Order: sequence, then C-alpha cells, then structure tokens
Amino acid sequence: MSPTLAERQKIRQDEIITAARRCFRASGFHAASMSQIASEAKLSVGQIYRYFSNKDAIIEEMIRRIIDSRIEEMQGKTLVEGMPEALASRMTLNEDDDALMLEMSAEATRNPQVATMLIEAEARMFANACTHLKKQFPHLSDEHIRCCVEITAVMIEGTIYRRLTPLKVPSEQLRPIYQDILNMLFTAK
Amino acid sequence: MSPTLAERQKIRQDEIITAARRCFRASGFHAASMSQIASEAKLSVGQIYRYFSNKDAIIEEMIRRIIDSRIEEMQGKTLVEGMPEALASRMTLNEDDDALMLEMSAEATRNPQVATMLIEAEARMFANACTHLKKQFPHLSDEHIRCCVEITAVMIEGTIYRRLTPLKVPSEQLRPIYQDILNMLFTAK
Repeated sequence: MSPTLAERQKIRQDEIITAARRCFRASGFHAASMSQIASEAKLSVGQIYRYFSNKDAIIEEMIRRIIDSRIEEMQGKTLVEGMPEALASRMTLNEDDDALMLEMSAEATRNPQVATMLIEAEARMFANACTHLKKQFPHLSDEHIRCCVEITAVMIEGTIYRRLTPLKVPSEQLRPIYQDILNMLFTAK
Repeated sequence: MSPTLAERQKIRQDEIITAARRCFRASGFHAASMSQIASEAKLSVGQIYRYFSNKDAIIEEMIRRIIDSRIEEMQGKTLVEGMPEALASRMTLNEDDDALMLEMSAEATRNPQVATMLIEAEARMFANACTHLKKQFPHLSDEHIRCCVEITAVMIEGTIYRRLTPLKVPSEQLRPIYQDILNMLFTAK
C-alpha cells in the first residue's frame, strides 16, 4: 500500500527538519538561509514554504522535537539514580541536540521570537520534570520540588555547557560529591 | 602631550574590539564579516588587517579580555561568600560578555580554532580559580579543590545559561540550598 497524503507530508517534514539541523550545525541559525535548507533537503524553496512559513517555524518544530525526546527520555527513569554518574562523566543524550540548543540560546540573545520559543520549551520541560519528581518523592512539597528541578537543571545544563572543554577531575572523584548534593536535595523539606 | 604611537595603537585596537563585539552580538560570529566590523569601527578593511590578521584573531583577543576581567573580578572576592545569593538570583557580571561567550561556545561546536581558544581560556580560568581557592582553604587537598572548582563552575555556567528563561522559584528559597551545597563542598576532605 502506498503512503497516504498525511504520511507523505510527515516524511517530507522530517526531511526538511533533518536538512535544517545540518545547515544550522554548519553555519549557525543566523547565517543559514531557507534556500540553503531547501538545497540540503533537495527541494525547491517553494516546496519548503508549503511546510514551513519561515525559518523561525522550522526552528520551532526542531526545538519541539528535541524537548519531546528529552521529556520521553526522562519518563523512563528514576531521575536521581543514574544522575551522579551522568553529571560526573558529563554524559549526554545527543551531542547534536546539545549543540543545536546552544545555537538556539545564542540566537535567543538577539532574536525575541527565538527567545520566546526557548522560554516556552523550558517551561514545558520544567513542568514535566516537576510532575515526574513529585511521583517519585510524593512527600516533598511542591515548592521544594521546584527548587530541586531548578538546581538539577542548573547542574545538567552547566555540565552540557562545559562538555566543550576537557574534564580536569577524574569522574570517580566527582561522582560521590554529586551523589551527596542530590541526596541533600531530595531529602527533608 | 599627544598620545604615543603605542597609545594610539591601543586605542585603535580597543575600538576594533568594541565594534566586533557589537557585530557579533547583532549577527553571530559566523555571519559577521571583517568588512562589517570595519564599517562598524569606521575604519577601512585594510586598517583592520593592520591590527588583526583575521576574524579568529579578533575573537581570541575578545575572549582574552573577557577572561581577564572574570579573573580580576574573582581576585577581589572570598569566592564562597556572595555565591549562594549570586546563584539563587542568577546574578551576572556582564550580560554582553555572557552572550558573547554563549556565541563563542556555539561557534566552537563547528570551528576547531574557536574550540581551541575556548579550551585555553577555560584552562586559564580553572587554574586561577584553584590557586585562589587554595589560599582561602589551605587545608583542602589539591584534588578536592579541583572538584570544588569544577562543580562551582558547573553551577555558575548552568545559571548563566538558564538566565535566558525566567526563574520559576523565588530566589529566597534557592539561596539556603545553594548555601548548603557550597558548605558541603568546602568542608572536609
């Protein structure tokens, strides 16, 4: 059976996002153009515009997918368990996603529309993490859960940011310290 | 007395860096060109090349100055004292420097020369922070000092990164938690 129109549209949209990701990685969001993205996707500029009204719309869909995959990844985990090791060895889910989020953040400092997208994406991520943690730690107050999510997010994002430079401490030394910090966060209050 | 040649050269170099910072903020490092920087500095492209052999050389001098100012700022402080409040309220020394470092980091993911500059800048910052902390906490082992610097850097950089989105927890609630984390880091071992 040949794919339906909706399926064909979905495939085409995926191809455009994949091409856009490559262009953004190569030249940055600001420098990449719709015609570059079209050429990378082997489509005409006109075809691209049938799916996305402008570059910001592509960005928005790309961010949405990155956040979706991060939320999905989080759901399957008891957040605190693997975290000390993940922080200590600066593990990442997806290096390309990290680089694209860094690019989006840099762009957000000069483009209010991208800034709005980032704020919405982070709010969705934050709310999901709170719900997820509340299930694991039902005795903690909502206020304290929000503090835990904020500080854990600071540590995860700081770690991702620092992945660009070499780790100067053996991860075995860092792991127990991160463990202590997380134990402290997720007890009491 | 009129300025010496060296003084005039210093002034001119400062003007170029200031112009480059504005261009990088406006269009990103990748998209900004030497001719844009020249025009912003009200100089000819030829004049710019007398001071900097290419865009990477301008970046390098710009990063050097940002790191110098961060190291200088650190020297005057007992690092741990104001830190819980600074983290909890996501304080920053210089918003433009933060945005430019974010831009540099995004560029470092695709440009190996910029990546090398970032690695060197961070190594200088890290070594200075270790020396500075060792003076304040002479009883801590060098190994533990390096762990403290790494984790503090993660928290500072994660906080800077998250400044692009609104804080969802009152900083009064975060401050004592950051205080506990820092107390834990800088005792024992």
